[in-house]
Amino acid sequence: MAPLTPRLVVPIDVKKKPWEQKVHLHNRWHPDIPPVADVTEGELFRVEMVDCTGGRVRDDNSADDIKFLDLTIVHYLSGPFRIVDAEGVPASPGDLLAVEICNLGPLPGDEWGYTGIFERDNGGGFLTDHFPSARKAIWYFEGIYAYSPQIPGVRFPGLTHPGIVGTAPSVELLNIWNERERKLTETSHESLRLCEVLHQRPLAILPTSESCLLGKIEEGTAEWQKIATEAARTIPGRENGGNCDIKNLSRGSKVYLPVFVEGANLSTGDMHFSQGDGEVSFCGAIEMSGFLELKCEIIRGGMKEYLTPVGPTALHVNPIFEIGPVEPRFSEWLVFEGISVDESGKQHFLDASVAYKRAVLNAIEYLSRFGYSKEQVYLLLSCCPCEGRISGIVDAPNAVATLAIPTAIFDQDIRPKRLGHGPKLKRTPDVLRCT
Amino acid sequence: MAPLTPRLVVPIDVKKKPWEQKVHLHNRWHPDIPPVADVTEGELFRVEMVDCTGGRVRDDNSADDIKFLDLTIVHYLSGPFRIVDAEGVPASPGDLLAVEICNLGPLPGDEWGYTGIFERDNGGGFLTDHFPSARKAIWYFEGIYAYSPQIPGVRFPGLTHPGIVGTAPSVELLNIWNERERKLTETSHESLRLCEVLHQRPLAILPTSESCLLGKIEEGTAEWQKIATEAARTIPGRENGGNCDIKNLSRGSKVYLPVFVEGANLSTGDMHFSQGDGEVSFCGAIEMSGFLELKCEIIRGGMKEYLTPVGPTALHVNPIFEIGPVEPRFSEWLVFEGISVDESGKQHFLDASVAYKRAVLNAIEYLSRFGYSKEQVYLLLSCCPCEGRISGIVDAPNAVATLAIPTAIFDQDIRPKRLGHGPKLKRTPDVLRCT
Amino acid sequence: MAPLTPRLVVPIDVKKKPWEQKVHLHNRWHPDIPPVADVTEGELFRVEMVDCTGGRVRDDNSADDIKFLDLTIVHYLSGPFRIVDAEGVPASPGDLLAVEICNLGPLPGDEWGYTGIFERDNGGGFLTDHFPSARKAIWYFEGIYAYSPQIPGVRFPGLTHPGIVGTAPSVELLNIWNERERKLTETSHESLRLCEVLHQRPLAILPTSESCLLGKIEEGTAEWQKIATEAARTIPGRENGGNCDIKNLSRGSKVYLPVFVEGANLSTGDMHFSQGDGEVSFCGAIEMSGFLELKCEIIRGGMKEYLTPVGPTALHVNPIFEIGPVEPRFSEWLVFEGISVDESGKQHFLDASVAYKRAVLNAIEYLSRFGYSKEQVYLLLSCCPCEGRISGIVDAPNAVATLAIPTAIFDQDIRPKRLGHGPKLKRTPDVLRCT
Amino acid sequence: MAPLTPRLVVPIDVKKKPWEQKVHLHNRWHPDIPPVADVTEGELFRVEMVDCTGGRVRDDNSADDIKFLDLTIVHYLSGPFRIVDAEGVPASPGDLLAVEICNLGPLPGDEWGYTGIFERDNGGGFLTDHFPSARKAIWYFEGIYAYSPQIPGVRFPGLTHPGIVGTAPSVELLNIWNERERKLTETSHESLRLCEVLHQRPLAILPTSESCLLGKIEEGTAEWQKIATEAARTIPGRENGGNCDIKNLSRGSKVYLPVFVEGANLSTGDMHFSQGDGEVSFCGAIEMSGFLELKCEIIRGGMKEYLTPVGPTALHVNPIFEIGPVEPRFSEWLVFEGISVDESGKQHFLDASVAYKRAVLNAIEYLSRFGYSKEQVYLLLSCCPCEGRISGIVDAPNAVATLAIPTAIFDQDIRPKRLGHGPKLKRTPDVLRCT
Repeated sequence: MAPLTPRLVVPIDVKKKPWEQKVHLHNRWHPDIPPVADVTEGELFRVEMVDCTGGRVRDDNSADDIKFLDLTIVHYLSGPFRIVDAEGVPASPGDLLAVEICNLGPLPGDEWGYTGIFERDNGGGFLTDHFPSARKAIWYFEGIYAYSPQIPGVRFPGLTHPGIVGTAPSVELLNIWNERERKLTETSHESLRLCEVLHQRPLAILPTSESCLLGKIEEGTAEWQKIATEAARTIPGRENGGNCDIKNLSRGSKVYLPVFVEGANLSTGDMHFSQGDGEVSFCGAIEMSGFLELKCEIIRGGMKEYLTPVGPTALHVNPIFEIGPVEPRFSEWLVFEGISVDESGKQHFLDASVAYKRAVLNAIEYLSRFGYSKEQVYLLLSCCPCEGRISGIVDAPNAVATLAIPTAIFDQDIRPKRLGHGPKLKRTPDVLRCT
Repeated sequence: MAPLTPRLVVPIDVKKKPWEQKVHLHNRWHPDIPPVADVTEGELFRVEMVDCTGGRVRDDNSADDIKFLDLTIVHYLSGPFRIVDAEGVPASPGDLLAVEICNLGPLPGDEWGYTGIFERDNGGGFLTDHFPSARKAIWYFEGIYAYSPQIPGVRFPGLTHPGIVGTAPSVELLNIWNERERKLTETSHESLRLCEVLHQRPLAILPTSESCLLGKIEEGTAEWQKIATEAARTIPGRENGGNCDIKNLSRGSKVYLPVFVEGANLSTGDMHFSQGDGEVSFCGAIEMSGFLELKCEIIRGGMKEYLTPVGPTALHVNPIFEIGPVEPRFSEWLVFEGISVDESGKQHFLDASVAYKRAVLNAIEYLSRFGYSKEQVYLLLSCCPCEGRISGIVDAPNAVATLAIPTAIFDQDIRPKRLGHGPKLKRTPDVLRCT
Repeated sequence: MAPLTPRLVVPIDVKKKPWEQKVHLHNRWHPDIPPVADVTEGELFRVEMVDCTGGRVRDDNSADDIKFLDLTIVHYLSGPFRIVDAEGVPASPGDLLAVEICNLGPLPGDEWGYTGIFERDNGGGFLTDHFPSARKAIWYFEGIYAYSPQIPGVRFPGLTHPGIVGTAPSVELLNIWNERERKLTETSHESLRLCEVLHQRPLAILPTSESCLLGKIEEGTAEWQKIATEAARTIPGRENGGNCDIKNLSRGSKVYLPVFVEGANLSTGDMHFSQGDGEVSFCGAIEMSGFLELKCEIIRGGMKEYLTPVGPTALHVNPIFEIGPVEPRFSEWLVFEGISVDESGKQHFLDASVAYKRAVLNAIEYLSRFGYSKEQVYLLLSCCPCEGRISGIVDAPNAVATLAIPTAIFDQDIRPKRLGHGPKLKRTPDVLRCT
Repeated sequence: MAPLTPRLVVPIDVKKKPWEQKVHLHNRWHPDIPPVADVTEGELFRVEMVDCTGGRVRDDNSADDIKFLDLTIVHYLSGPFRIVDAEGVPASPGDLLAVEICNLGPLPGDEWGYTGIFERDNGGGFLTDHFPSARKAIWYFEGIYAYSPQIPGVRFPGLTHPGIVGTAPSVELLNIWNERERKLTETSHESLRLCEVLHQRPLAILPTSESCLLGKIEEGTAEWQKIATEAARTIPGRENGGNCDIKNLSRGSKVYLPVFVEGANLSTGDMHFSQGDGEVSFCGAIEMSGFLELKCEIIRGGMKEYLTPVGPTALHVNPIFEIGPVEPRFSEWLVFEGISVDESGKQHFLDASVAYKRAVLNAIEYLSRFGYSKEQVYLLLSCCPCEGRISGIVDAPNAVATLAIPTAIFDQDIRPKRLGHGPKLKRTPDVLRCT
């Protein structure tokens, strides 16, 4: 008789603060953050996690919490887990760690989430030059479905996934990260092309000891101080996986992660009930607390066997993944196109980011014709299961990006029709503002 | 009793040159290229077309034709068609033209195609700095399937589509295009970020009278001279649709095109048996001659009703489309990720083009472990039904792009396995080189 | 702020017997079984349930429990629930009750199930003349996946569903059931065509007070006695829904049930982790305890509006349902065909049951070539997500039925290949036998 | 350079009668019907075919042609083809013949089809006791889509397939067929259960020389006489494949057919633009002329290796098939259920045919609430891509069958709604009647 139930390695009490949890959490990447548990290859284990802000965004009637959110705290992660094989030998640098997501979902008793627009001066988002003010929408879950009182007429099944799954970086990899991101911040904004249109956002989020949480390492100690100064922020996805925000990493998916330190030191967090490709509003997925049921396999030497570096060192690799078999099925999609010409009419060279920006703007403008405010659509496209594609990247000077939206999530027919045949509902109420 | 068969409005004889066809072709966008036929709303009509090079690439054993291809000729288009309603009133500027692709395919008797890598100095491609030399692969069709003698072990159903569907630009729109693209070419390469990695490609393809084909307007006349000097090249997708290379625009799809001139002046061409998102090798789709069966509907005033401009004028809009119901179904995908750090290790800011480049490079490196040359994989990823996604575009500084490949197209299991469990075939022969 | 969590209306403790549960269960259909709770339209509520045998089949090494199972006990149901609208007015006869399955799954801590072959003299199954002896296989769950130590080399995602969802019959409908089923049992076996091949099975399962459980009505009282004598057994699906065993009734599905008594008196039970179309071995699905999260809507007068009777009374109707959006996706299927010629070679007239029997036998024979015992395949086809189709029902004298099996559930390629190219593994151990 | 185009082995001229075609057709199964062509393993070849009636049903305004159709003529087949390997060695009895359907479609210039209800006394159908009179609907094709002027408000993509693909029977197999079908016709109708409800249909269609067409064998000769007396009719599917009417046998599918005679003698015919599972009205698919592009592979000894007989001889086997990758995708289905209780209220024992009949009747009644006549729905369910499932076949006494209809084929929302929310259009005109 097999063990029937996944072993709970990280329990979460959502009434407690992140630093009060029974098993220590952390919010930085560093090789010296100590593992909270050993996990054996093949074992099914359960990891619970707080939402990315550790409970600071509330189910209330104001976007104030979004506006003033302290971004030095994100993301609270569960782990690290030290992965060992059946003989107790830990995963080693050079191995590949296959992590299967056997199940996941919201935490029982906490079935809700939020999506927000960060204030331009506090995080911003992909369209921060169009939407500079903080907004929020609350989502409630009915089993597989989510709906929001602030975005009426829409309901969709979640393609639930962890925004963050990653292994710990080695010291060498950490240095590479810190160095290249520091260099970027030293670039003048003027020389950065995308900044012409995304000008108010910070270029990179460098290490800071502010709000740093490092598992069981006590704050203020010398060890804490050292690590806090070096440890990478969790905002961007990197070679170790991390905050890759790949929305299809859902039930039944498998991630093949490179191993950089002994034991792999796997961490995970930032659960999303649902997210659109790009997560455009930044606080864009439906953020929630949740649980994962995972199973690991160590592919010895797999990093060398399967991952060829693209970059100057052997560490410049990226994870691979397989998509699971139970994604929501949609057969009808309305697709918006964007080209790499910006809002001022300026032509950019094969720039997929600019093209995608225009595709998203086109979609927002279009859907706002169906009774929605532009803020409602911006938040909706951040979190609904829409697909963002790089359709053409060679036909100079225009990159072509597309955004495909499943029509079944709406309670009205959103396709273009002869005039007078479409409903013209006003969708109220609107998303939440600051008080 | 209804008419049983689509009306053939453009017949093609593949043994003839593009300028010898019975119905005149054209290879530029201009409002003054005269329509070759009237088409009535609701009518099913058939358009045949030459391949994008008008037959200059041959089914032979050398990539010489690719290497020396005269790119001033592309793309030969069929049309324009003047679209009128049942009362004979033509589509007008401000209308939306819904074009349904009822059927399409290769031309009977010409069931083959090619995909190539352009020489770095003659067109290049997304990875021209990695693959500077001309290469070619020939694809044969067995009904819905394509296979290539040069890329053994792969066979896939085509998601066949026209690379180009578009309406004629108005004079005003044409001027906008020419102006913004001219400005781009005047930019110094140094100030362009993407050019650090894609440095050898021309920035834009300005009007040239060289090889210009303008329908029935006779070459060398004053009219021809005037138009040839102004007419936009067909390489990039723009506000009128054009070369958007959206691979899902297949059977049963519908495109909603803005109308800029009286009659809409619809043109189409550049048939692809199959293409991967991005069409990375530039001559990347399986290029072929082919036919379309189309049906049009005029949505009067629809441009104003549905398309809000994103840009300085009312003309800065983009088409919308709906995906058809008979795409090939794949349930298992292997996904490669890229972040916006380039091959030199340099960090770029939220750059989806760089991230996608790294994702493609990762996929090429990975698949080359399964017996393929990198050139084979580069060409394969250009033309197989792989999906390129913008997964994360907000987690500064890293954009995350993903490339998903359907595993069923291979005759081996390409997923990572414990060492010693994967086949290690050498896939020969390789793609075609120059002689 | 909305209520965040479904209201738990029936909790289950799997360590207790069915008659010891905190909220009373029942195992018969009768209008006088009293509701255990009121549920309001639009409310999300959670129902837990025991497995169909109430815990009598164990995770051990013998099929003895299957062999000697007392079938008078099945199925233990949770409910009935009295459905009322927002004003407290109950559903009325003639209404349609829309029940949405928002979520479902195994009970936490009890993540396993079983599938069995009933002994020929104690229940039998579709192929009882081929498989007369009791057998059992245990299935363990890893999140969305199930695997069995007794059927190695197979793993599949569950299309989890309740075998039984139904409303209480009215007295009139109950009488119709009892009358028509009694008549059937009085038919001589010789006059029944299907019995030529399925000869050892009881024709119908008439009311019996043996093992009767009627909610809070105390056993042995006069009321109990009366109801127990009249109440319909739960084995067959009928006009009220009931044991329809429709495998696609999973997450996100909606059932439209006719209402026959005031309050509708909705009951549910018999959770299946997964089932193949037909549930051929009878104890064929992966039987388990579980939970449902449901939401009801009352469509007033909907029974009259939407359900036209097919039969002599207004009660001869059947439920309608909609399939949910998150079924497992499989793109490759191997399909077996059967015609209505039985194993003796006798021709039957357009008999879909005989045709399906031959299709299932064909599939069993075929798959047994890949290292499996026939009992392993019989149990596998009972519970894996295979599809049973009535392909042709008019081409006299042969009905054509097909059984489609998703190839991805196997760890080997099960398609026909040139000889010598297929693996020939012996799949051990085998399914469990009696001791 | 590979051959570019499939070799045309059977050309059809739809203006000619079946017996006037350049390559001889046949309408019976017999080992002595001579092959019309040799086909080599691996070769792509094209087969054209007349519709099943050889042009006797016309695109006009009356169902008279359906009413008086001479059913002794059906089905006109193209072939047989003698399949040989690369060395010229023909397929042998005991081999398995893998036939891949690389492409198919209507014949260019003949893009229309029909579906009909046969008169009760001339063929009938699954519901002939409900629909005893001849009716007809004409369908026109717009590329992948079909629509009918007689069934307005419906349009769907075709899952086009040949109703008939089969190999020639050996003498021994032919004798088995004739014997068992003759025996059935000698059964008294009273002893046949299904005939209680399907009482007016002939039990089997025995050999008859009337209208017999035997390829190049001249009518009236002794050879013709002998074969015509023995040759099996093509109506039912049998061990050789034949008229299996499996609607999913479309583009990219593969059939594995048993080989009974040297060369296999493959024949095909009865093209369907689209069909629903069961093809319930008998003349139920959208019948048309058409073409197939096929490729064969001989699996030597494969019949013995893969097909275990289910019946008294080694010939009691059935084909296997694989479904292709480009079926129309539908994500939303409305499902109707039937149980094995007939229209008189009588209980039948696990009878899937009766259960499916009730499911189809339920669907007809339901859809007729949306503005359709019952005849319109009967014809629609015969030919649209609906799925007929055997959901439960063990829960005595009720078999449960389901019929799932894709909702996207309608131009209205056909799901149950609160009263007053559904459209109530009258769909005119109706299907065609006799004059």
